[in-house]
Amino acid sequence: MSATSSAVQHGQGEQPGRIMSGEMAEQPAMLRRILQRGAPGIREVAAGIAAKKPRFVLLTARGSSDNAALYAKYLLEIRLGLPCGLASMSTTTAYGARPDLTDVLMITVSQSGGSPDLVASTKAARAAGAITLAVTNNPDSSLAAVSEHSIDILAGPEKALPATKTYTASLLALHLFVDGLAGGDGEAAAGALPGLAEQILSRRDEVRSLASRYRFAERMVITSRGYGYPTAKEAALKLMETSYIPALSYSGADLLHGPLAMVDNISPVIAVVPDGRGGDALQPVLDRLRGRGADLFVVGPQVQVDAASAGFALPTAGVPEELQPILEILPLQMLAYEVTIARGQDPDAPRALAKVTETH
Amino acid sequence: MSATSSAVQHGQGEQPGRIMSGEMAEQPAMLRRILQRGAPGIREVAAGIAAKKPRFVLLTARGSSDNAALYAKYLLEIRLGLPCGLASMSTTTAYGARPDLTDVLMITVSQSGGSPDLVASTKAARAAGAITLAVTNNPDSSLAAVSEHSIDILAGPEKALPATKTYTASLLALHLFVDGLAGGDGEAAAGALPGLAEQILSRRDEVRSLASRYRFAERMVITSRGYGYPTAKEAALKLMETSYIPALSYSGADLLHGPLAMVDNISPVIAVVPDGRGGDALQPVLDRLRGRGADLFVVGPQVQVDAASAGFALPTAGVPEELQPILEILPLQMLAYEVTIARGQDPDAPRALAKVTETH
Repeated sequence: MSATSSAVQHGQGEQPGRIMSGEMAEQPAMLRRILQRGAPGIREVAAGIAAKKPRFVLLTARGSSDNAALYAKYLLEIRLGLPCGLASMSTTTAYGARPDLTDVLMITVSQSGGSPDLVASTKAARAAGAITLAVTNNPDSSLAAVSEHSIDILAGPEKALPATKTYTASLLALHLFVDGLAGGDGEAAAGALPGLAEQILSRRDEVRSLASRYRFAERMVITSRGYGYPTAKEAALKLMETSYIPALSYSGADLLHGPLAMVDNISPVIAVVPDGRGGDALQPVLDRLRGRGADLFVVGPQVQVDAASAGFALPTAGVPEELQPILEILPLQMLAYEVTIARGQDPDAPRALAKVTETH
Repeated sequence: MSATSSAVQHGQGEQPGRIMSGEMAEQPAMLRRILQRGAPGIREVAAGIAAKKPRFVLLTARGSSDNAALYAKYLLEIRLGLPCGLASMSTTTAYGARPDLTDVLMITVSQSGGSPDLVASTKAARAAGAITLAVTNNPDSSLAAVSEHSIDILAGPEKALPATKTYTASLLALHLFVDGLAGGDGEAAAGALPGLAEQILSRRDEVRSLASRYRFAERMVITSRGYGYPTAKEAALKLMETSYIPALSYSGADLLHGPLAMVDNISPVIAVVPDGRGGDALQPVLDRLRGRGADLFVVGPQVQVDAASAGFALPTAGVPEELQPILEILPLQMLAYEVTIARGQDPDAPRALAKVTETH
């Protein structure tokens, strides 16, 4: 593995986090663009792939894109009943595994479309008989070139090192794709998202005051279940790569299988509570955490926030549970940003990160 | 979710960690038992399943068993070219997904075989057409009862809350099973393991002095690649559930996609370096970490330990890479134990953990 040097240049004295903050703010317009300009093409790709009747799906990605891929796994399993797996890339790239991928749809998610191991494993999958789909922010990338099908997530250039708008763009594009496979009309349900995203992003003062809770935190635990679980993982990654606070994410069920020992008064807990079945399944975990006196911060419906130590109430009324992840991550992106600023660091310039990580 | 109360009782004044320590020490004899008494039955199960020609494998587990399942995923993909996925249980139990699982082998790994959600999702998978296999330490469990096939991992009763011997027992049983599917003779290659495990476990003084490095650590990063990656995840879980040190595990490739910002002088890094292709693929990550001046502790071949800040040299000569995980985890179990003792805590009694976690 090697990493190219970052293309981002900082002028001395510029406001820290200016780039990340600007890209977060672009999300409502971007979601609108995907719904208006992107949806017809995505629907066409979905129809082409549906005609090939895949029986299994493998998802390949790294970093934030891996969390977007996990969201797609939930959608594909729940809405289409397609068994899915997240690919372990090294089995192909390091060990030379050449599985028979007939009837398998391989979806590779990568904002840059440039990471050599993603390109290599997608190429190998296609040669092994898989239907290949690239979901990328760069339609001219090597990844798009080696894939049979490709979807442009239309996020526009992303310059901050922590991915924000490419994450929500990937979620919406993947939602529209799976909805297309299922023969649904996802644009209608998703129509409210840009306006709601705008509302959420306008509550910056609220997040800033919540961020003060974590200024001196030495660790955090983030939990959720079902559709909210990818949000928990992405929030943990965002917090770590901007603020360097070790943030551990667990599904609520896994939390009870071990890491709960770390909670109590030692680690504050952030719970992403979907308004729906995922939230219902998380309820016993929330009760257990409250019973142990954990410091519990909730991102979810107002009633859940009221029962917690603190939280950010999400406007989820009328938003299907499967679309809520596109909104849930927004206050957590903002939280990562504000905590990092509060700690005197620059969210635009995490140590050691390059925008395109070239892993082989 | 609810958790039953722990069956483990501690007399006041008993030596902390006595139970965990005793169970770790049982591993060489247990590995011998699995090879001698367990192998023929496992081979028979494998032959029965091979005859059904599964095309895709889903693995279902939680906690340490989930790490054992990940090890099986590498084996199945690399040795058999079978595409695999780790099941997201809530898609079945919370969202009622009912996928078509014709040609799918569902392997459920659970030491107790009692967790209701594992039983429910295995039952649902069987009804949906899957070939079902339970890998459990309790052949009389509900899980074994609802599964078409089952393998007893023969670890004997495990009473300490952190799983140790059931983890290595699961690895060896899964190895013998996959080897049976592949028509190999895994017992021959595995024959050296009990003796090597004995050697490793006898080096307790060495681990105790290494543990002093982490007595005051506030966080740790554990990395590996390929066959060693499940070891990194299991080591992180073991460290967290005994010592409560936040231990973050990443594949080497993922580490470069974000969490590297947390390394530097802030977090000590433990690298599990397989002697083989996984280690080769990890080499650029090791070089990068060394270049950044990271505090690097290696579990792997002597030559890798010599190039690091510290380490535990594994006797891997003549041990195929795919069997090394059964040895790699031993010094890391010992490390978790010793760090916990050094911090004045009791490895047998992590806060809040019950031995059988009942997640629904």
